[in-house]
Amino acid sequence: MAYNSIILRVEMNHSLLHFGDVAAAIGQAGGDIISIDVIRPGQEHSVRDITVDVTENGESLVVESLEKMDGLRLVNVSDRTFLAHLGGKISVQPTMAIRNRDDLSRVYTPGVARVSMAIHESPDKAYSLTIKRNTVAVVSDGTAVLGLGDVGPYAAAPVMEGKAMLFKQLAGVDAFPICLDTKDTEEIIRTIKAIAPIFGGINLEDIASPRCFEIEKRLEEELEIPVFHDDQHGTAIVVIAGILNALKVAGKRIDQVRVVVNGIGAAGVSICKMLLAAGVRRLVPVDRDGAIVRGGSYEHPMWQWLAEQPQVEAEPGKLSDVIRGADIFIGVSRGNVLSAEDVASMAPDRIVFAMANPNPEINPEVAMPLVKVFATGRSDYPNQINNVLVFPGVFRGALDCRARRINEPMKLAAARAIASVVTENELNEHYIIPSIFNEQVVAKVRHAVVETAILTGVARRTPPDFR
Amino acid sequence: MAYNSIILRVEMNHSLLHFGDVAAAIGQAGGDIISIDVIRPGQEHSVRDITVDVTENGESLVVESLEKMDGLRLVNVSDRTFLAHLGGKISVQPTMAIRNRDDLSRVYTPGVARVSMAIHESPDKAYSLTIKRNTVAVVSDGTAVLGLGDVGPYAAAPVMEGKAMLFKQLAGVDAFPICLDTKDTEEIIRTIKAIAPIFGGINLEDIASPRCFEIEKRLEEELEIPVFHDDQHGTAIVVIAGILNALKVAGKRIDQVRVVVNGIGAAGVSICKMLLAAGVRRLVPVDRDGAIVRGGSYEHPMWQWLAEQPQVEAEPGKLSDVIRGADIFIGVSRGNVLSAEDVASMAPDRIVFAMANPNPEINPEVAMPLVKVFATGRSDYPNQINNVLVFPGVFRGALDCRARRINEPMKLAAARAIASVVTENELNEHYIIPSIFNEQVVAKVRHAVVETAILTGVARRTPPDFR
Repeated sequence: MAYNSIILRVEMNHSLLHFGDVAAAIGQAGGDIISIDVIRPGQEHSVRDITVDVTENGESLVVESLEKMDGLRLVNVSDRTFLAHLGGKISVQPTMAIRNRDDLSRVYTPGVARVSMAIHESPDKAYSLTIKRNTVAVVSDGTAVLGLGDVGPYAAAPVMEGKAMLFKQLAGVDAFPICLDTKDTEEIIRTIKAIAPIFGGINLEDIASPRCFEIEKRLEEELEIPVFHDDQHGTAIVVIAGILNALKVAGKRIDQVRVVVNGIGAAGVSICKMLLAAGVRRLVPVDRDGAIVRGGSYEHPMWQWLAEQPQVEAEPGKLSDVIRGADIFIGVSRGNVLSAEDVASMAPDRIVFAMANPNPEINPEVAMPLVKVFATGRSDYPNQINNVLVFPGVFRGALDCRARRINEPMKLAAARAIASVVTENELNEHYIIPSIFNEQVVAKVRHAVVETAILTGVARRTPPDFR
Repeated sequence: MAYNSIILRVEMNHSLLHFGDVAAAIGQAGGDIISIDVIRPGQEHSVRDITVDVTENGESLVVESLEKMDGLRLVNVSDRTFLAHLGGKISVQPTMAIRNRDDLSRVYTPGVARVSMAIHESPDKAYSLTIKRNTVAVVSDGTAVLGLGDVGPYAAAPVMEGKAMLFKQLAGVDAFPICLDTKDTEEIIRTIKAIAPIFGGINLEDIASPRCFEIEKRLEEELEIPVFHDDQHGTAIVVIAGILNALKVAGKRIDQVRVVVNGIGAAGVSICKMLLAAGVRRLVPVDRDGAIVRGGSYEHPMWQWLAEQPQVEAEPGKLSDVIRGADIFIGVSRGNVLSAEDVASMAPDRIVFAMANPNPEINPEVAMPLVKVFATGRSDYPNQINNVLVFPGVFRGALDCRARRINEPMKLAAARAIASVVTENELNEHYIIPSIFNEQVVAKVRHAVVETAILTGVARRTPPDFR
């Protein structure tokens, strides 16, 4: 159940009613009073801001009940979520003040010319003398925003700004939102390449499948800075982290389990790849038409790739057929595609990750009694699989070692690092994955990413703590 | 003469020398000691940081003289300009901290989805709910950076970052540098259009002529946010501001003076246009091949436009021919193209703006005794014509009234506003233009820009102080 916070500004006539009457009316209408601020006190009249949590459609009930009251004037209703967005959620700040002409001549003309020439002579100096060292573009074309679909670049902006906030707060990375007014694959590739010089990395975000694969692949080939499609790899990394710990809880080994992945879009493809890299030997990718089978022939290049992997099963079938006897179900598809009977047909000590947004593949209340470990993308159940656990640490590491790219070993190392934050003592079926506010997460992911980048030869710099 | 500040870290052996010896050596080598910080005190040895101003090539002399001294070890030499650039000069900051899950659900998922949908349904809300309201892209392809020429997008970055600092400090505008890895006109236009959604304005910067004209024109036609090529219009506005006040000092009227503009590139074209808009009736544009004359036929579209203006003179000739009898010379060309004889041949109470960088069209020491008012782009002479006076206030105004574009009347109003900061009492031949640190400049320019935007119908919003 989603809640909104609203702020009600009310003017009360004290001869006609008391605050207790107002509080009672709000409570009866389903509102939950969180705080009260007196804006203008007074003997006869007073003005107060009342912050109230309401259910998704509860705002109108509360407002109507207050509008009916004698002696109360509803001055204004504002929504805390919208208030938090007023004017946007990030700003650009100078790192120092320009106090006088001397300062100006250092950071701008004429002094800056010497810095420009130094970079012109040795372009690598861009990493020490410009923001490139610590700056990531968060790029979206607005075609697959959250669960909302193709809402366009303007509507994508608040999500990208939110991501930029998280980059800074959690990992100290400067991130700037780039919202693209084009859906053309080649145009998107050209644009990102054209604006790349100021950035040390590219975080692709909420770009629809299948164009997201081509865009990422081409940018990885054609740029010398890391490119990371968060919806694919961020999701895959945190899913694998959760699976590694869920396997421990279930007492199973990754090379012995049979895994069904439902929904072979951006995230599903990356999850399948990482499962194989992590050692899974029996994999069943499933999409709308049923299982993608070894030896099959598919138009979608990533499906074709899957059909060529020896670990992918050859048996065709619908989801309800192939799920029988599976140890693990990972859903990155649509709400309510998995039935209680499907889950009951799985192997004992089964693991179900139902990640569809906002409604999981199966109602958590139905699934939880049937399984050993259950996880979703939602924050109102245990085991939230949230890629906020991934991107801050991955880019912190990639920037710190100036990684050319973020390769598969680095992604797997990041997944293991996230899993490792939950200690053996803490681990249980309701706690397989750390909170995004756990302060160890970014440090551990960064360390794993840097270490693996150095080992695999994609690091162009060794951070001081690795020397 | 350009100075650098360097910081010398020295370890001294007190039994072999005193600080007085070190200070004397630095002074004899031409260095000027600005400050001394004791980093590690000690009876026998101490370590100090000595900040020294040196002339452009003076660093090596100071360093050599110290390296020769017994009892002194030069630990490190750093350059204050480079130090100020380490890690870049701007950062991206969240406007609020995400302290808990409640905060997260407002600024990111799931709450942000409601904000995205609100913008999707009504795209104008991007101006209230995203950073678009206050954010400008500072875009360069790195082809005409300062006086350095085509140094590329990486070397352009420190200049664009410096500009972003000034935008924020002087006008509260969030500006982000975009350095383009392409020199193709169509590609630049496409790229800027593609990334426009997050920005409320586009400041083009250091893009070579003639492609800068086409880029600006097309973007003005095809985007609904203001586009401003600072090298053209920023320069033109501040030149016109200076000319308006110089005319008062010389006791002349703009509709009666004869004006020679030398160098008809990006800035020169815009200066000519603004002079005509400001009321000049006798204009002589001059480029390498001599005067551009009325009735002539030219390949360059802007030159052709000039040749069709009734105020442009029809008499051909070299600079030294056409300058005879002129009241005003404005140079935006190359160093040392104007001789003392040329200046002497002008009308009495002549005005010379020699803006070429870093060397003006004529040596200021030679020109100043010959003219009524002299101005340059340099900070080491009076009357510095600096477009830092322009862009912060122009964009502050354009953003505040959501101007569709920055039209000619708005530019002229900005010039008059800058000129008006110098009062009648203060005005004299050495003070025709305010300092960039004068706090009235941005407020006055903003006010003039908003007022004119409303009058000319390009404002989409009336700021509270204009209601």
